[in-house]
Amino acid sequence: MLRTETEFVSWLRAQVPSGARGLEIGIGDDGAIVEVRRGHKLVLKADMSIEGVHFTRRVHSPRSVGHRALARSLSDVAAMGGTPRFALTSLAISRVATRAWLRELYAGMLALAKQFAVILVGGDTAVVAGKTVLDVMVAGEVKRGMELRRSGARPGDQIYVSGRLGLSALGLRLLESGRRPSPQDAGAIRAHLYPEPRCALGRYLSRQRLASALIDISDGLSTDLAHLCESSGVGARVRADLIPGPEFPTGHVPNSLDLALHGGEDYELLFTVPPGKTGQVPVRFRDLPLHRIGEIRRSKGVALVRPDGTATPLGPGGYDHFSK
Amino acid sequence: MLRTETEFVSWLRAQVPSGARGLEIGIGDDGAIVEVRRGHKLVLKADMSIEGVHFTRRVHSPRSVGHRALARSLSDVAAMGGTPRFALTSLAISRVATRAWLRELYAGMLALAKQFAVILVGGDTAVVAGKTVLDVMVAGEVKRGMELRRSGARPGDQIYVSGRLGLSALGLRLLESGRRPSPQDAGAIRAHLYPEPRCALGRYLSRQRLASALIDISDGLSTDLAHLCESSGVGARVRADLIPGPEFPTGHVPNSLDLALHGGEDYELLFTVPPGKTGQVPVRFRDLPLHRIGEIRRSKGVALVRPDGTATPLGPGGYDHFSK
Repeated sequence: MLRTETEFVSWLRAQVPSGARGLEIGIGDDGAIVEVRRGHKLVLKADMSIEGVHFTRRVHSPRSVGHRALARSLSDVAAMGGTPRFALTSLAISRVATRAWLRELYAGMLALAKQFAVILVGGDTAVVAGKTVLDVMVAGEVKRGMELRRSGARPGDQIYVSGRLGLSALGLRLLESGRRPSPQDAGAIRAHLYPEPRCALGRYLSRQRLASALIDISDGLSTDLAHLCESSGVGARVRADLIPGPEFPTGHVPNSLDLALHGGEDYELLFTVPPGKTGQVPVRFRDLPLHRIGEIRRSKGVALVRPDGTATPLGPGGYDHFSK
Repeated sequence: MLRTETEFVSWLRAQVPSGARGLEIGIGDDGAIVEVRRGHKLVLKADMSIEGVHFTRRVHSPRSVGHRALARSLSDVAAMGGTPRFALTSLAISRVATRAWLRELYAGMLALAKQFAVILVGGDTAVVAGKTVLDVMVAGEVKRGMELRRSGARPGDQIYVSGRLGLSALGLRLLESGRRPSPQDAGAIRAHLYPEPRCALGRYLSRQRLASALIDISDGLSTDLAHLCESSGVGARVRADLIPGPEFPTGHVPNSLDLALHGGEDYELLFTVPPGKTGQVPVRFRDLPLHRIGEIRRSKGVALVRPDGTATPLGPGGYDHFSK
C-alpha cells in the first residue's frame, strides 16, 4: 500500500464510503466536489498534529494519532456551533513509519469520522526523512446566523465548562510514567488517547441560543479563557472550587487544579451564558456534566478565587508553540 | 511577530483584508465562517510543500515558497473548472527560520491570493525542530454541474496542453547549477519560482463545455496523462513533435523533450476535447498558447510517437512520493 502513490490513493479511496450525502467527487480527482445544505454557511478549520509536539511514537498508538488528529478539527467546528461534514488529510509521513502504522492511523481517523458522519474527501501525502506531520482540515456547516463566536461574552455572563478538565494531561502523565495502568487510570488514559469532540453540545448551545460565546479547550482552561476574554474585550473571575478537575474514583490526584487549569487537549467546551438564561442550562447534556465555574467581568484579566477568598491573577499557562 | 502565538495570529490577521465577499469570520476564532454563492458547489483541495522535497532554502526564496505553496492548490481548483475563494494555511515552521523569512513567505502567498481574490481565513501554526512543512487548503466554488473531472475522456478525443511544458524543471536546473542566470533564463526561472495557476482557462473550458476531461500537470505530462487515462479507462497517443517543450529565444535546450514529458511542477492544464468541438478551441486563451498534442485511444497505455513514426510506450516519469 505504500509502494506507490497511486496504490496508496486507491487503497485510501477503498476505505471511504462512496455515495455519501453531499459528496459528489471524493478522493482521486484534482479536488473534491461537495455540497452543503441550502441556508447553511461553511465552517473551515485546519489543525496540525506533529510527531514530537502533539504525539510521540512511544506514548501514542497510530490509532490514537489518527483519532486525535481529526478530533482537534472536529472540536473546532463544535466550538463554532457547527456540524462537521468533510475532511481533507495531509500527511507528511516519516520514512521509518511502517505500512501497519499508516493503516492503523487511518483506521483511527476513519472510525472517528464514521462516528460523526464526516467524509474524508482528499488531502495530500508525501514521505519525509524527518518526523511525521499530519494536517487535518474540516469543512462543516452551520445554519445561517447560528454560529457561535469567541467574542460575544458580556459582563455578568456566567462561565461554564463541559466534562472534566485536566483528564487528558493526567492521562498523558500516566502514559509517560511507563508504569502499568491500573483500572482506575482508564478514564484519564482514554481521555488523552481518544478525546471526544463535543459537536452535539456545540450545536445544542447554538440552537437553544444559550451561549453568548464559545471556545474549545485545546490549550488549557487558563489559555482558552484568556482567548475568549480577549476576543470579547472583557475579563473573568473563576472559582477554584468550582472547576471540575480530574478525579479518580478513589484518592487524590496530585496537582489536580494545575492540571485542570493548564492541562490542555481536553477538547471540552468553554462557554458563557447571559444571566437571564442560566436557568435553562442543564446540569448534564446527555452524559456530559456542565459546570458553572465563574463570571465574566468588565475589568480585563482573569482572576482565580481560592476557597479562602483570595483572588490571584490567572495567566495563560497552556501551550504556546512559539514560546517553547 | 514570532514571539508568541497570539502575536503571530494578530500579525497575520492584519495582513488579510477584512470584509471580503463571503467572509463572515476569518482568522482568530475557532474556525472560519464563509459562504459560497447559491447554486455553486464546493471544491476542496489540500497540497503540502515540504522543505527538501518541494523546495530548498538554497534555491527558493521564502517569497517563492509561499507563492508556490498556494499555487499548487489553486491549480487543483483550476483543474476542476472552479474558482478558488478561501484558503487555510498550516505551517510547521523550522526553528531555524527567521522572522524575515516567515514574513516573506506570507508576502509571497498573500500576493498570489490577492491576484486571485482568495481570502486567507485561517490555519494552524507550530514551530518544529525539523524542516518546514506547509499545507495549504483551498475551498473554491464551481457552478452546479460544471465541474470537470479526470474521468471524462473518450476514444477519439483530442489532447491539449496549455503553455509550455518542462519550463519549471529547466528553471530549477538553472537555479541549482548556481551559475549566474542570463536574461534568456528568466522565463524558465520565473516559471519555476512563480508558477501561474490556470484558473481562468479552467473556468473557460468549463463554461464553454469544451473539455471532456481536465487535469493539471503537477507531476509531469507523462504521469498526469497516465492519471487522466486511468481515470477515464482509456489510452492515449501523443506526438513528440507537437509537445511544446521549453524553448529559449536562442539555441537548443538539452533534453528538451524529457523535461517536457517528465519535468513536473508546470501547473499547466492538460485537457481532452471531443472531435466535434476541436474547431472551437482557440490557438491562444488570452496570452496562453493551447497546443494539441495527441489523441485518446480505446487501447490502454500511453504511446509516444517520434517524428520518424516509431511509437514507444510512455511510462509515468514524474515524481512519486512513495517510490523515492
